[in-house]
Amino acid sequence: MDGLSEDLPSVPSDTLRWISAEYYGLNGGHYDILESPPSPVEFSRICHISRPVLIKGYVIPSLQRWSDQYLIDTMGERPLSVAATPNGYADAVTHNSDGKRYFAEPHYQNLTMRSLLSSLESPSGSNNHEGDIYYLQSQNGNLYPSSYFTPGDTEGGCELVNLRGDVPAEVPWCSEALGRCPDAVNLWIGDSRSVTSIHSDPYENIYHVARGSKTFLLLPPTESWCLKERMYPHATYGRESEGSPLLLKPSPSTIPPVRWSSILHPEQPGSLPETSHPIIIRVEAGETLYLPAGWWHHVRQSGLSIALNWWYDIEPRGPAWVWLRLLRGVAVAAAEGEEADG
Amino acid sequence: MDGLSEDLPSVPSDTLRWISAEYYGLNGGHYDILESPPSPVEFSRICHISRPVLIKGYVIPSLQRWSDQYLIDTMGERPLSVAATPNGYADAVTHNSDGKRYFAEPHYQNLTMRSLLSSLESPSGSNNHEGDIYYLQSQNGNLYPSSYFTPGDTEGGCELVNLRGDVPAEVPWCSEALGRCPDAVNLWIGDSRSVTSIHSDPYENIYHVARGSKTFLLLPPTESWCLKERMYPHATYGRESEGSPLLLKPSPSTIPPVRWSSILHPEQPGSLPETSHPIIIRVEAGETLYLPAGWWHHVRQSGLSIALNWWYDIEPRGPAWVWLRLLRGVAVAAAEGEEADG
Repeated sequence: MDGLSEDLPSVPSDTLRWISAEYYGLNGGHYDILESPPSPVEFSRICHISRPVLIKGYVIPSLQRWSDQYLIDTMGERPLSVAATPNGYADAVTHNSDGKRYFAEPHYQNLTMRSLLSSLESPSGSNNHEGDIYYLQSQNGNLYPSSYFTPGDTEGGCELVNLRGDVPAEVPWCSEALGRCPDAVNLWIGDSRSVTSIHSDPYENIYHVARGSKTFLLLPPTESWCLKERMYPHATYGRESEGSPLLLKPSPSTIPPVRWSSILHPEQPGSLPETSHPIIIRVEAGETLYLPAGWWHHVRQSGLSIALNWWYDIEPRGPAWVWLRLLRGVAVAAAEGEEADG
Repeated sequence: MDGLSEDLPSVPSDTLRWISAEYYGLNGGHYDILESPPSPVEFSRICHISRPVLIKGYVIPSLQRWSDQYLIDTMGERPLSVAATPNGYADAVTHNSDGKRYFAEPHYQNLTMRSLLSSLESPSGSNNHEGDIYYLQSQNGNLYPSSYFTPGDTEGGCELVNLRGDVPAEVPWCSEALGRCPDAVNLWIGDSRSVTSIHSDPYENIYHVARGSKTFLLLPPTESWCLKERMYPHATYGRESEGSPLLLKPSPSTIPPVRWSSILHPEQPGSLPETSHPIIIRVEAGETLYLPAGWWHHVRQSGLSIALNWWYDIEPRGPAWVWLRLLRGVAVAAAEGEEADG
């Protein structure tokens, strides 16, 4: 799925346990909180340390005007590709009615900004009639795709182009620290019914909450082996016909199985092994999380939540990529017959 | 010896081989050459990548006046603690007349700058009468010791204090990049008869050649397992009486054995395993090498060679320390009965 998990080595469990104990012994569960954004050289040091940091005071002034009405007026009738699920779990391991567990991708549905916002919970909001749960989480650079940053590339369509004037294409202190542009910039709009299942990305991630709050449960890459990854058959939500309920449809066997954590609810006590050391960080509106490449994250949100993220490619030179692949190198069984928690 | 090699894990050979092949596949044998010193943020990125970089144009103007006469006049009769060996190998595995191999520390002898320089080779130089080979390589912060940088510490004696006015205590772009002061600053004076055996240090190292040249043979930390470390009994050179020849004296058994590479001449073809990928960098007068923490280095020099180095502590947070210890985690046998090359 992410390039990291192909052709992994077979690393003995003892070695992975030694690494994670040693790493925790040196680093503990600490994370830094900055009262103002770092300078480029400070942020470069932070990326070298590669631990999460909560950054306050990174103000994006134009986001002040992002009322519902402003977003609706600015986006007009442009269709947005919104993830729809019956349970709020898009891209997650899901029990199906056939008794098996699948890696379930959401149904993508076109909605206007007005329809999306009115379906999300808020003091005065109302839900959609079908009971489906919507989450704008297209993750394809819906504000600035990769092609935007690639000289000579022709940029394809971008759903949220009308909001670009409010969102800087780059985080200056991050671009200067890393010496490169982002790979993609995304807008996320959802509510507390949508949860992001625990996973990791091979990107340095700057995650800014504009409205509501997000609660991240984080594990370092050294604790990858605690996540009990398994191979799950692939499935996608869909409808028999327009307006009918969402059903999970197993994909043809030509679609390869997906490697994913079998721990569905790491936030619940007892779900994670005792040898793991999750860090919980709640990111409030106006705050920014530096989420280092390869860190595992499970994300919940409160209220109607609007967030932005800038993904920057991981440093390809040096040891970082090898380190992350090594730490994923635990033998992974097929999910068949396995028991996941929750 | 260095803190890194205590309580190492036992990492299977397959895992270490996978890591080194993967690292070499991504990084190759390339090193960057900069035509001028990096900015702090550029150097921070370089430290994150942790590969050697040859830096030109880092000029320390006061070194222009370091003629032999200037050094002699400035140091006067102050005694310098100089390593003396019969063969130019201080801190190296050495065959002794008893047929065994030892990790041999040099004899330290007090010399004036005048005596040291006159013993070293130069177009008009002469060697000392005994045939001993001298190398000023005291490595204890002979210009600025650790205590100099530690607020509240009382600084002990420093042999080269008279030359401090010519040598900055810090490399500004390195201190700013790392966010800290050096741990120690050293002066090195020797000639082509002195060789530094292959080893690694847990320090970021800025190595500047003021006169002559130094040739570094480098291996990345991922190839630690290629160095065939063994445990060697400890010995020290000494004299029976003043003026008598240097003899290697095995230390009492209460002195613990020393873990050291059994490859004595990695520069000779066929000495290193074919799976290793040494990088050779010749650093000329006026040039500076960034030698990243944990990189193995074997150093030769040409002519009368004068160099400075600034050691900065490795970043203690994040994965760097664990990574280096993991890569040293190969089972190491005692040297007894083993065959070293050369």
